[in-house]
Amino acid sequence: MIKVSILGTGNIATHLFKTFSKSDEIEVVQVVGRNKKALLAFGPEEKTTSDFSNLKSSDIYIIALSDDAIQSISEEVKINNGLLVHTSGSTSMSQLSKHGRHGVFYPLQSFSKSKAIDFNNIPICLEANTKEDLNLLKKLASLISKNIYEIDSKQRKSLHLAAVFVNNFTNHLYHIGSEICKENTIPFEILSPLIQETAKKIESLTPYEAQTGPGKRGDFNTISNHLEQLKNPEYKAIYEQLSNSIQLTYGKEL
Amino acid sequence: MIKVSILGTGNIATHLFKTFSKSDEIEVVQVVGRNKKALLAFGPEEKTTSDFSNLKSSDIYIIALSDDAIQSISEEVKINNGLLVHTSGSTSMSQLSKHGRHGVFYPLQSFSKSKAIDFNNIPICLEANTKEDLNLLKKLASLISKNIYEIDSKQRKSLHLAAVFVNNFTNHLYHIGSEICKENTIPFEILSPLIQETAKKIESLTPYEAQTGPGKRGDFNTISNHLEQLKNPEYKAIYEQLSNSIQLTYGKEL
Ligand SMILES: NC(=O)c1ccc[n+]([C@@H]2O[C@H](COP(=O)([O-])OP(=O)(O)OC[C@H]3O[C@@H](n4cnc5c(N)ncnc54)[C@H](OP(=O)(O)O)[C@@H]3O)[C@@H](O)[C@H]2O)c1
Ligand SMILES: NC(=O)c1ccc[n+]([C@@H]2O[C@H](COP(=O)([O-])OP(=O)(O)OC[C@H]3O[C@@H](n4cnc5c(N)ncnc54)[C@H](OP(=O)(O)O)[C@@H]3O)[C@@H](O)[C@H]2O)c1
Repeated sequence: MIKVSILGTGNIATHLFKTFSKSDEIEVVQVVGRNKKALLAFGPEEKTTSDFSNLKSSDIYIIALSDDAIQSISEEVKINNGLLVHTSGSTSMSQLSKHGRHGVFYPLQSFSKSKAIDFNNIPICLEANTKEDLNLLKKLASLISKNIYEIDSKQRKSLHLAAVFVNNFTNHLYHIGSEICKENTIPFEILSPLIQETAKKIESLTPYEAQTGPGKRGDFNTISNHLEQLKNPEYKAIYEQLSNSIQLTYGKEL
Repeated sequence: MIKVSILGTGNIATHLFKTFSKSDEIEVVQVVGRNKKALLAFGPEEKTTSDFSNLKSSDIYIIALSDDAIQSISEEVKINNGLLVHTSGSTSMSQLSKHGRHGVFYPLQSFSKSKAIDFNNIPICLEANTKEDLNLLKKLASLISKNIYEIDSKQRKSLHLAAVFVNNFTNHLYHIGSEICKENTIPFEILSPLIQETAKKIESLTPYEAQTGPGKRGDFNTISNHLEQLKNPEYKAIYEQLSNSIQLTYGKEL
């Protein structure tokens, strides 16, 4: 049985709490948060507290707080030689180094509170300052997911950057697609199968191999037609930038 | 029974041929192509020809040729009052107007010859110059897909442009993500669940609602960290451009 305490009551705290609670081999000892109303969702009073300086004994303490609160709260808590980890993609492990045993437990997915999540497929990126604690984190992670990776702080920073491209920026391209549809009274749902297929393709091809379209073909006719159609100057600039980058990738200069 | 002839032996011709052949209510009368070797894949000799000027009688003739061959081949063929359509997203219906009955049968998906396709979910965008022929195309399309849309030439042009954003450009963002992973010896597959989830989200939220990340939050700290990490000037420029556009969308200027 691994004893875990969760610090925070936001998205990640909520999903970890639900997932841990389902496992017979994990006991959630305590949930700690400044927001008393939010704490109510985490079970009976004796298992929650808003006092960060008075924590029950656990094997692992998971800080699931906003990035900019991680360091200060970590310096506030007293955890009696337990293992302290955070869940942040963009925060270095060293922000917890005031504590002898520290690490990172970063689930690489985009969570929102309302949407149920099956952790089983979510990659969990682990780091710890000793081999023993890395193994303890692996044990915990393997109870909720089958995709476990050892990722150090430098790699995690890059991974977070890559995630911005494939998640945040991709979603913005979807938004631009939906705006173009709206202007022309086309239902955006018509693009959904193409969007799903584009994402599916990278499971069997590299994105380099999967690339298609006028930029890849060097089809300047279509490119200049498209640029003419685009009235929004931001979208035009994005089209030019990405089209140009695709052409550079495949060796054709604009 | 709808009698169909297919002009072309490429990706679209191949997939349409396979799908039509499965239906009891569609007869593929003939496949026509200049490439004799490619024709061999389309069944017995008496059902294929490389002579575009001597076609068997059909209800519908589908031009599945490269965009720039559509108009010239359409002017070459003699089709005795059959309905002539093309399958192109970016070509106006009027390129076929030499023929009294003409239209468009555009499957909105990214096809490659080797990958099997289930047409049932693929949106098919239809246009014709008479109501009767639109109905005939609807009848044909509904035999292979449950997603049928009436889309005129102007809308189709916009849809094709939107598809470049959500498919070609999105795939290039995946490529950039994979390059960042490669530089840091991180397996790219680690990002696959995030990519799939990002695509899935737009089935229940608008992309506007689904947006997350430093650009949306106006988190300038993370943005400038990310820009510092990016060494490739193209990728840096793309990051700035997209981040800026997200901030404009949500009302925060860089
Ligand atoms: N959401 C994701 O998709 C995702 C994915 C992977 C990793 N992460 C990481 O997981 C961590 C938590 O993210 P989240 O999405 O769960 O955030 P969230 O939903 O915004 O929750 C943040 C939590 O931190 C608390 N908090 C903020 N400042 C605090 C302070 N100064 N003192 C005490 N508590 C404070 C908040 O309390 P209040 O309710 O009182 O404000 C809330 O409980 C972050 O490090 C994030 O980078 C997030
Ligand atoms: N691929 C897609 O994802 C997709 C999706 C929706 C719509 N479309 C549209 O469907 C149409 C066909 O695309 P595709 O992907 O099937 O193209 P493709 O695989 O490149 O095949 C093009 C076909 O056109 C023939 N062709 C080219 N120029 C010709 C000419 N001057 N005379 C006679 N035949 C000629 C080619 O013959 P050779 O083999 O002899 O060159 C080949 O059979 C295009 O209008 C395209 O825009 C494609």
